[in-house]
Amino acid sequence: MKPKAVVLLSGGVDSSTTLAIARDRGFDLYALTVDYGQKQIIEISAARRVASAMGVSLHEIVEIDLRRFGGSALTDKIDIPKSRSPGVIGETMPVTYVPARNTIMLSVALGWAEALGARHIFIGVNAVDYSGYPDCRFEFIQAFQRLANLATKNGIEGRTFTIEAPLISMSKPDIIRTGIRLGLDYSLTHSCYDPTPEGLACGRCDSCIIRRRGFAEAGVSDPARYVTG
Amino acid sequence: MKPKAVVLLSGGVDSSTTLAIARDRGFDLYALTVDYGQKQIIEISAARRVASAMGVSLHEIVEIDLRRFGGSALTDKIDIPKSRSPGVIGETMPVTYVPARNTIMLSVALGWAEALGARHIFIGVNAVDYSGYPDCRFEFIQAFQRLANLATKNGIEGRTFTIEAPLISMSKPDIIRTGIRLGLDYSLTHSCYDPTPEGLACGRCDSCIIRRRGFAEAGVSDPARYVTG
Repeated sequence: MKPKAVVLLSGGVDSSTTLAIARDRGFDLYALTVDYGQKQIIEISAARRVASAMGVSLHEIVEIDLRRFGGSALTDKIDIPKSRSPGVIGETMPVTYVPARNTIMLSVALGWAEALGARHIFIGVNAVDYSGYPDCRFEFIQAFQRLANLATKNGIEGRTFTIEAPLISMSKPDIIRTGIRLGLDYSLTHSCYDPTPEGLACGRCDSCIIRRRGFAEAGVSDPARYVTG
Repeated sequence: MKPKAVVLLSGGVDSSTTLAIARDRGFDLYALTVDYGQKQIIEISAARRVASAMGVSLHEIVEIDLRRFGGSALTDKIDIPKSRSPGVIGETMPVTYVPARNTIMLSVALGWAEALGARHIFIGVNAVDYSGYPDCRFEFIQAFQRLANLATKNGIEGRTFTIEAPLISMSKPDIIRTGIRLGLDYSLTHSCYDPTPEGLACGRCDSCIIRRRGFAEAGVSDPARYVTG
């Protein structure tokens, strides 16, 4: 019997690649999408498509309404910044930072993992592209793993949890090349923070800029559909 | 201006007393109830009554459906154990343990605290009565505080968070005496895991047993309404 893993899946490039890596490592896959009231429901549809294509045993979508708390352009009424100078990304804390987002998502994943008997939790955090986000760093992942093993019945009884962050120090082109090697179809994924109602990517938000640059540097054509060239 | 604090509030004796302590310490109170799909909605009503009586600035109720994950008598179809021998409480992991519950609740509180600019998060965990729960121990609280200060923008920029667990080593009679001294009306609180549809406490679950023993030992009459004497 394959060991079970809970994999956090937003439907973007990084989490979808993480799911492909977990599959390649032989895990029985339990995908978890946390819907914290994102502006684009399109992300959830992308997560469903990717989960299905990767053959997960179960895909749970848990809603936690973080919009009421505010404090982020992703959940609040702050405008998504548009930039033509990708160089500035990562120098300051982006307004797209959602307070405690990865802590909340990992906590819910931990609850499910303990109930399932899964001992591995995968998260697609990346410290390279998102250097401004505190909860994308290796120290954060280490601290969460330590917490998980103090916080749970399984953890204190020796059935310890491992938080797997396989992308943490990979470049975007390396991530994309890895996903393609593992058979991931990136046309299923969605990255844009501010898509049109028809689901076209804006091409100008930080997420689109990072994605497009990644595909260009990987020498692979980006299958996303953009409003602007 | 008073400093803000987020206080986790279930509506039971411990969290309500914690709210009274935070008020006494001069905080501007933001009460947070996490509804994880508990069997008794009566708990939520108790939380509303207590929040109102304590004069909180805001009371948020966040729903996270943990029922689908199972693994606990509080969220699943496992029977609530009834005991006449309170001595056994705490010797083994109770079936009322909810996987990663306090981790999830503190994570959501952290997200709200960061968005509000609150630097104190109160939780009514108690290591004495709930010695079987890994996430009621001091090591867990310490590990969560460390995580909080690595996980957030405020934390890494020096506006650090403190996780306050004022009841952690108090006995139940001491908790009850403290609440009464601070003007808390315990008739507003609810403790039973398995109340009747009319809201009467069963008197026999672990939570009722711990409550009744606490009031008896404090020499105070318990204002809860019980089915059985």
